Amino acid sequence: MKDAYAQAGVDIDAGNRAVQHYRELTESWTHPDQLGSLGGFSGLFRLPGDGGRALVGSTDGVGTKILIAARLARYDTVGADLVNHCVNDILVTGADPLFFLDYLAVGKLDPQVAAHVVSGVHRACRANGCALLGGETAEMPGVYREDHFDLAGTIVGIVELNAMPDPNRVQPGDAIVGLPAVGLHTNGYSLARSVIAEDEYDEAFGDATFGDALLAPHPSYLEPVRAIRRVADVKTMAHITGGGLLENVPRTLPERAVAVFEQTRWEVPAIMAEIVRRADLSHAERYRTLNMGVGYTLIVPIADVDAALGAAPGARVVGFVQPRSGDEPRVVVRAARG
Amino acid sequence: MKDAYAQAGVDIDAGNRAVQHYRELTESWTHPDQLGSLGGFSGLFRLPGDGGRALVGSTDGVGTKILIAARLARYDTVGADLVNHCVNDILVTGADPLFFLDYLAVGKLDPQVAAHVVSGVHRACRANGCALLGGETAEMPGVYREDHFDLAGTIVGIVELNAMPDPNRVQPGDAIVGLPAVGLHTNGYSLARSVIAEDEYDEAFGDATFGDALLAPHPSYLEPVRAIRRVADVKTMAHITGGGLLENVPRTLPERAVAVFEQTRWEVPAIMAEIVRRADLSHAERYRTLNMGVGYTLIVPIADVDAALGAAPGARVVGFVQPRSGDEPRVVVRAARG
Repeated sequence: MKDAYAQAGVDIDAGNRAVQHYRELTESWTHPDQLGSLGGFSGLFRLPGDGGRALVGSTDGVGTKILIAARLARYDTVGADLVNHCVNDILVTGADPLFFLDYLAVGKLDPQVAAHVVSGVHRACRANGCALLGGETAEMPGVYREDHFDLAGTIVGIVELNAMPDPNRVQPGDAIVGLPAVGLHTNGYSLARSVIAEDEYDEAFGDATFGDALLAPHPSYLEPVRAIRRVADVKTMAHITGGGLLENVPRTLPERAVAVFEQTRWEVPAIMAEIVRRADLSHAERYRTLNMGVGYTLIVPIADVDAALGAAPGARVVGFVQPRSGDEPRVVVRAARG
Repeated sequence: MKDAYAQAGVDIDAGNRAVQHYRELTESWTHPDQLGSLGGFSGLFRLPGDGGRALVGSTDGVGTKILIAARLARYDTVGADLVNHCVNDILVTGADPLFFLDYLAVGKLDPQVAAHVVSGVHRACRANGCALLGGETAEMPGVYREDHFDLAGTIVGIVELNAMPDPNRVQPGDAIVGLPAVGLHTNGYSLARSVIAEDEYDEAFGDATFGDALLAPHPSYLEPVRAIRRVADVKTMAHITGGGLLENVPRTLPERAVAVFEQTRWEVPAIMAEIVRRADLSHAERYRTLNMGVGYTLIVPIADVDAALGAAPGARVVGFVQPRSGDEPRVVVRAARG
């Protein structure tokens, strides 16, 4: 059965089959200094001649959010989307970002547009204290339409191996602290575009327009996460990207724990509620496709909750860890009361 | 005046203007641990807590070579093109590759095709002793045509700062050793596609077909370069990519030196001679757009030439460093007689 997302042109099952093929490659050979797997948020590589530290790398793109940016000719925010997404992806390992490289591909190179895009990348790198080490701008007539472009990037960070989060330390009774999402961030845009027409982008939505709500930049969680880690024992963290709470949180849990989220504990951004309504998403679809308002999760002991919430504005308890028996799901979201 | 390459849809001047914009960004802020510039082959970042080493990063794509691969449904060689291109780019700093991440974007995800592409990346990483640390596969309906894809990647290496090549050590009388190119590698494909029609790809060309000649994989120069560096004092190196000998070699020379290449000293691959003939490229155009048979250059003292040539099969002297006066060009190519 095709779900709502597949109907929007994105085939999550095809993605999973591709990942399965990649796993087989990894199983056939991995570099001896490589730690962790292709399937995680990011990969780790033991720093040569340094027993205590690893480099962390992650590559990502902005996805079809760029089609909305291109349509509205707003070129300077997708850079922040990209950099902040990558920063958050390596942040879950406890890494500090070191440097970033971007890849901008266009059908026809307009130097002003390219400058706007890369200035957004540069500004976000600076805000995260991360070097913009280089990049590639490729003009590829025939691959991209003249007015289309794609933007991807790679971040490299460094982590102390003995300070890394560890799912095996998570216990029933621990609290799940959530950091608020401002919108879709960089996931779910093919779905959003299938239910919000291009000629609506300039129409009013809440205090602004649909275009504004759709292009709200992906935030960096670097500062709030650092602030919380200074005052609380953060056991594991997840960046809520494609796959939502249902697919991103399990990798932060031990086998015998379930994360129970209570939807009454946080606000769903209006743009997300609108997409859920228009696409008539089932409960499972919405929490597998969209972040639904939780951008990042941190699991802390209950005793550290007050300190954690005090350290980061907007942070709130969004759920709890409970014991898991048999083949119960790893993540449960209790919906808002109707 | 539009040159042959611009007529093929690639605007080198627009690229240079974009790079100029990027330079202004870099001048407004660079991270204090960043060494080198955005304009070079790769960027350097001082390794935190380690005074003697730097990380080296480089991002690149395969360019429109992928359109030929897609047309011929040969998906497993572009990965080697990409990885080897990136390995060579950081090799000029003296770096050893550590890890690689790929970005594969498609209009419609075919897991088998994606697996072929990434298996090529994985195989080339293994051959270079470089980890495939991760990657991103993005399905982007609306940005790419269903049967099109793009492939880019990022490599990270490590270098001892005091063993880095130094253009200021290059002197008149030094020899330029060239490593042979097998074809276009990853540059000049928009031009090639403008003069070789798709329905010729299966036609005979030399011992094989046009398609075979056009898709010949970009070689890695890691092993020959390591072998030469073990026995010769390699002062600087260049990877001959977009911009050809004319634009890549100057960054390996001091201000007051000129690199004089003698075209009689090496073979121009047949596919390149064919493109030059069909596109009627001027002398400057051919050496600015194509590698013309020299894939990588190393500058060594004349006394080390025999050792260098003995260490790497196919290596040969392709030119010499001479004194430069006034505003003479930095690179001169003396054409074949006749």
